[in-house]
Amino acid sequence: MNEMTIAALALPSESLAALRVRVPLVQNITNFVAMDLAANTLLAVGASPAMVHAAQEVDDFITLAAALTVNIGTLSPDWVAAMERAVARAGQLRKPWVLDPVGVGATPYRNETAARLAAAGPTVIRGNASEIMALAGAAAGGRGVDSTAASDQAVEAAKSLARASGAVVAVTGAVDYVTDGSRVVALRNGVPIMTRVTAVGCALTALIGACCAVQSSPLVAASHGLAIMGVAGEMAAERAAAPGSFRVALLDALYELDGEALDARSRISEAAA
Amino acid sequence: MNEMTIAALALPSESLAALRVRVPLVQNITNFVAMDLAANTLLAVGASPAMVHAAQEVDDFITLAAALTVNIGTLSPDWVAAMERAVARAGQLRKPWVLDPVGVGATPYRNETAARLAAAGPTVIRGNASEIMALAGAAAGGRGVDSTAASDQAVEAAKSLARASGAVVAVTGAVDYVTDGSRVVALRNGVPIMTRVTAVGCALTALIGACCAVQSSPLVAASHGLAIMGVAGEMAAERAAAPGSFRVALLDALYELDGEALDARSRISEAAA
Amino acid sequence: MNEMTIAALALPSESLAALRVRVPLVQNITNFVAMDLAANTLLAVGASPAMVHAAQEVDDFITLAAALTVNIGTLSPDWVAAMERAVARAGQLRKPWVLDPVGVGATPYRNETAARLAAAGPTVIRGNASEIMALAGAAAGGRGVDSTAASDQAVEAAKSLARASGAVVAVTGAVDYVTDGSRVVALRNGVPIMTRVTAVGCALTALIGACCAVQSSPLVAASHGLAIMGVAGEMAAERAAAPGSFRVALLDALYELDGEALDARSRISEAAA
Repeated sequence: MNEMTIAALALPSESLAALRVRVPLVQNITNFVAMDLAANTLLAVGASPAMVHAAQEVDDFITLAAALTVNIGTLSPDWVAAMERAVARAGQLRKPWVLDPVGVGATPYRNETAARLAAAGPTVIRGNASEIMALAGAAAGGRGVDSTAASDQAVEAAKSLARASGAVVAVTGAVDYVTDGSRVVALRNGVPIMTRVTAVGCALTALIGACCAVQSSPLVAASHGLAIMGVAGEMAAERAAAPGSFRVALLDALYELDGEALDARSRISEAAA
Repeated sequence: MNEMTIAALALPSESLAALRVRVPLVQNITNFVAMDLAANTLLAVGASPAMVHAAQEVDDFITLAAALTVNIGTLSPDWVAAMERAVARAGQLRKPWVLDPVGVGATPYRNETAARLAAAGPTVIRGNASEIMALAGAAAGGRGVDSTAASDQAVEAAKSLARASGAVVAVTGAVDYVTDGSRVVALRNGVPIMTRVTAVGCALTALIGACCAVQSSPLVAASHGLAIMGVAGEMAAERAAAPGSFRVALLDALYELDGEALDARSRISEAAA
Repeated sequence: MNEMTIAALALPSESLAALRVRVPLVQNITNFVAMDLAANTLLAVGASPAMVHAAQEVDDFITLAAALTVNIGTLSPDWVAAMERAVARAGQLRKPWVLDPVGVGATPYRNETAARLAAAGPTVIRGNASEIMALAGAAAGGRGVDSTAASDQAVEAAKSLARASGAVVAVTGAVDYVTDGSRVVALRNGVPIMTRVTAVGCALTALIGACCAVQSSPLVAASHGLAIMGVAGEMAAERAAAPGSFRVALLDALYELDGEALDARSRISEAAA
């Protein structure tokens, strides 16, 4: 990793400040469960969310957006067609886009869809360990949408997937890992209760999309998205110990997040590659 | 504006009391992001929400409902067909219906859909400045779903749209304006943090629909819906300074809203027409 | 009712403990309004939710799930086809599944769909009094999705529906009733404000689905789901008096619920059959 990237990685406050100043429009084709929390997460950090998925307008809308996120949580054929159309257009326009392969490994339909999207040139792929292992073709043991594997088991799969797809791959879990296929960044923020609120991972994907709109390095963008969500989660857990109030406190913490505190609390390091 | 309308406008508590006593059934064909907050807003003020959008049943359901709201936030062809069918039937049955042209100006698909619905005889059209200007055919500069124009820039467009469509038009922003094409009412309630919670505008549209069910004057209904949401927003902001807790406090404030306090805090006036 | 069932009924803590230990994967084909609260309810009590509805994958996914719930709140033809496919497969695999016939009685489309699903062998059917009366073919007087009848008016309809469908039927209201067609259990937990938060009934259906995954008796599973939600609602009402904060407190209470307190507060009794 070159010195400039290492220095940039350590300052997630730069992405947060850029989000607040530039208010990037982030288009999301995401699942029905996550739409509310993803939109509120983007608004809380300062971005402008739009949920636009019809094949009749995704081509047009992406020209206005600064980044796109595609999440396969609640799939159906019309939505898959719109996702493929949107990512093709994003590629033509060189707009960054993030893939969240929710539940890949659970059904052949999900596997085929995720594989096609992963092959379409995403900027970042974000998933839990089971999903990244499934998408990389490793023996996954996935079950539903919650991971059955620890994130460190998935690091090799993530590197392999990054090399095959050209995307930066983020594996989230107790420790988060981000890799471009050779370098590996480890992030040690976040709290366990984040897994007891639905769609926090999907909202994180939306946040990484927003960071891609203000950071030219996908490795830095993904790491900063993870750091912002992880530190906000820690702050929220200081105020709320149960999931209903934690979800509220998380959005408050994202909104109130101070750049200096963010940088000070971020635990970002280079992992053994 | 005649004296009776002016007197009625100043008393949004009359609509709130009628909602609580009559519990109108409000049918909503709204977007995926807004369904939860719109339904909870209607329940909080005392109305009964139903989210029913299938072409196979909208005709039947509208016969039971006291009002209909149509929001194009997350469009697709099946939903557009159901919207058109529902508004045609609402027209036949002389049931009031409210159009929320979310994101009009962003794509041709959205523009065509919103224009067709605006021509189908809505009782009220509610949008932000960019949306109302786009729908009125003015040079909009819209971008995504958040407004890039101030509401007072859109007053002339709103009047023109009201005359062309026959609807009362409400433009929301720092100041809200309601017009029937000749008279203009200005409302000065609300707080900026309302723009940092997704779907507050869509929930307001649902609330205006409920007011249309209990008020025969669309100008009064739209103004009262705006006053109720604006005053509740101010009260919520006294308890919560960040968007997660603000959203919770907003629903609490709508539920607890006292009629006398509502009338006393409402800042409704006739604007220079 | 035999002695063993009576003893099991009185201990909803056994289901709660089993949910927390076994973390059953519960697949939900539910409405757009309820997805967030249903998923968060399942996570709060310890289950693992998945919202999977595409005809292309419901057959595959159900093989992974421990239980299925089907809720017709926001219907459309593609979803109905997926529901029918999923329940057929659940039947083949002898997986328990719960039907929530939201709004049945309101439109012919809803009536036909609910009747077909009720005939497909659900393990449990959960609805309010209007819905159960409509589904049983009684004169319902239903209107929209909120009940216009008291739950005790629906007990005979519930028994008749249970005998016709082979399902255990739960009617929720001020008092909840659960019947297998001969025995009737009455539950007297819960608070009125639960009706002022959207999707609490739908979330309850998801919770009953989770209980069916850990309890072999559908009568016991449905009763325990009702007791868990009812007692958590009472605890939440001790902390929050308005619907925004009540919804947050309800999820917190479900997460924090202590087994001993649950059993002590549950008001479960055999009703006059």
